[in-house]
Amino acid sequence: MLPGVGVFGTGSTARVLVPLLKAEGFEVHALWGPSEEEACCLAKELSIPFHTSRSDDVLLHQDVDLVCICIPPSMTRQIAVKALGIGKNVVCEKAATAVDSFKMVTAARYYPQLLSIMGNPLRFLPAFVAMRQHLVDGYVGEVNVCDVRVYGPSLLDQTYGWTCEELMGGGGLHTVGSSLIDLVTYLTGAHAQRVHGLLRTFVQQNGNIRGIRRVTSDDFCFFQMLMGLPGSTSAGVCCTVTLNFNMPGSFTHEVMIVGSSGRLLARGADLYGQRNDSRTEELLLKESGYSGPEATDIPLPHLHGLSSMVKALKQSFQAREERRSWARGPVASAATFEDGLYVQSVVEAVKRSSCSGEWEGVAIMSQEPDPNHNLCEALQRNKN
Amino acid sequence: MLPGVGVFGTGSTARVLVPLLKAEGFEVHALWGPSEEEACCLAKELSIPFHTSRSDDVLLHQDVDLVCICIPPSMTRQIAVKALGIGKNVVCEKAATAVDSFKMVTAARYYPQLLSIMGNPLRFLPAFVAMRQHLVDGYVGEVNVCDVRVYGPSLLDQTYGWTCEELMGGGGLHTVGSSLIDLVTYLTGAHAQRVHGLLRTFVQQNGNIRGIRRVTSDDFCFFQMLMGLPGSTSAGVCCTVTLNFNMPGSFTHEVMIVGSSGRLLARGADLYGQRNDSRTEELLLKESGYSGPEATDIPLPHLHGLSSMVKALKQSFQAREERRSWARGPVASAATFEDGLYVQSVVEAVKRSSCSGEWEGVAIMSQEPDPNHNLCEALQRNKN
Repeated sequence: MLPGVGVFGTGSTARVLVPLLKAEGFEVHALWGPSEEEACCLAKELSIPFHTSRSDDVLLHQDVDLVCICIPPSMTRQIAVKALGIGKNVVCEKAATAVDSFKMVTAARYYPQLLSIMGNPLRFLPAFVAMRQHLVDGYVGEVNVCDVRVYGPSLLDQTYGWTCEELMGGGGLHTVGSSLIDLVTYLTGAHAQRVHGLLRTFVQQNGNIRGIRRVTSDDFCFFQMLMGLPGSTSAGVCCTVTLNFNMPGSFTHEVMIVGSSGRLLARGADLYGQRNDSRTEELLLKESGYSGPEATDIPLPHLHGLSSMVKALKQSFQAREERRSWARGPVASAATFEDGLYVQSVVEAVKRSSCSGEWEGVAIMSQEPDPNHNLCEALQRNKN
Repeated sequence: MLPGVGVFGTGSTARVLVPLLKAEGFEVHALWGPSEEEACCLAKELSIPFHTSRSDDVLLHQDVDLVCICIPPSMTRQIAVKALGIGKNVVCEKAATAVDSFKMVTAARYYPQLLSIMGNPLRFLPAFVAMRQHLVDGYVGEVNVCDVRVYGPSLLDQTYGWTCEELMGGGGLHTVGSSLIDLVTYLTGAHAQRVHGLLRTFVQQNGNIRGIRRVTSDDFCFFQMLMGLPGSTSAGVCCTVTLNFNMPGSFTHEVMIVGSSGRLLARGADLYGQRNDSRTEELLLKESGYSGPEATDIPLPHLHGLSSMVKALKQSFQAREERRSWARGPVASAATFEDGLYVQSVVEAVKRSSCSGEWEGVAIMSQEPDPNHNLCEALQRNKN
């Protein structure tokens, strides 16, 4: 039985997600927005019966059993953890920091019976589902190189806000890079061990952001990951990712995996492949028509993937009679909160590398840092 | 008046170059090959009247006024310097080391009346000539990012040789990367100041190279250059280059330059552009038909560029009556030996970075290192 849905967010993801949910038969009962006005406006537009700017009103809403969180990263942790605590299933976007991600992991571990997934739509895109299957089937042989690039228009909002602030989770690396890190890890099964990166903010001011305000989030980011298979002795995978959001127009979204005996290349939502003994590239999967809502500020593969993800959610819940229970199978490929913590750790290592200029190791937090750590140190120093 | 030509080399570049020279009216009088047999075989094939495996026989040949050197990098310096010493004009490919390049610079400075150019064909390709003009005209505004990628089949020879040896100038970085470093510097006018790179040899043995032999030259390389304009205070240009020669089939050759108000993109030998205020990409230059000899192991832009370079050489020599004299104008855009030293210095900095894992500065040699340096140090140590 399909659960009632509460949606957090009034941005373009929420605007796309709600119609997709409805199209699959989900009932969206409540919408949260950062202000009464924004919530009201979008609720009216999308015909959602209840709207609010107080998060508890959605979380405690009796018809809401599944909470979809598409809000600024710095607010994600709070809502996600609370939702799980109240016993609601959660699909959310990335958090702002590894500490936040760690707290989300702790909550998810505490409520294993609840659905808690990081909604990376790329994992559900048919092209990447097929790509993974081909990799498992040995199409490319041993994976050597992943080469990923996403180019597109600016990710900044019209007004000054979190998208402009690196510390609040803005920027190409955090917004787009994190879903690619997750994707490449999912596709290859290899984990980033050491990373090197370079972040730049070429456009620090524009027509909307000016005066004393400056953009600190990256609009250009290049990073490399040396990835290893757990327990493997192979040389590992070199992954390079280039993100450039100084290119108005439509998005370029390419993910290429090159191995010892062939290669696979997803251009947008289509999958191509070429084996080393073949003279030409073959089209392995052509994206079937997408009929959902359009959004020019979301790359096509994310948009199409979102649609597939909603379908998977439907299957997961439909398999059970009780409206809060769900079957693991259809969403088995989704990113867990643990995956979210890993991705966040890689993102932070890339940022460290961009500052230090050196290769940085990826360390996954295993216990929450003591918030009084600095205070303790200061007291210790005073004592001596 | 066109000079008589002597060609060094029996590889694919020589095989393409000779017909191109002849088509423009140059007479190729002599061919040098590493063995009598190889020289004889190619001379017969290309109808060259004289062949030899002794370099002096070409250099001292009385009908040879222009020497074209397309031989393994480790031998280039010796032939180029000697040719200039004998008073012959020189077009050559890259040397193996910065020390070799420096010696070539010294020779070129000593004989300024002789033509001495590094034959990077990309500088002559109409797409890049047009790209440079558009950059000068401000098509992209302030240059922020260069993004270059070349993918293709293995660069290894059929038999074990210099192409397999990193120290002899083999590998993607040295062979292809160096012409791209030269190109990007030429296009933007910015020089690499700090570089970071990663080299890999994924295929260390194959059907031809096996047993105790291993390939040490890179088949995968990506590097970043932070480039600055001389005397400019701007943030500079970020350049990323990805080279992957584990992809059998035809070459992918893309050079993209992204600026504050638009971008230019050379795909193969065609030039595309898009200004930020335009919704679509425009075709700025379509490569006109190329009718020269084909070579599957040379990327198309190199092949087409070679043809344009030969045409430029023709104009340069035709402008003068005396068969050894030449006009600077038509070949003004060619890379000088000084450019060759700069490129070699960048290549070596990338290799250092791949070993150290750190950003490395690009230092241009200004005096020849003392060959007895290590010896002197050892003696010094013994004394103490």
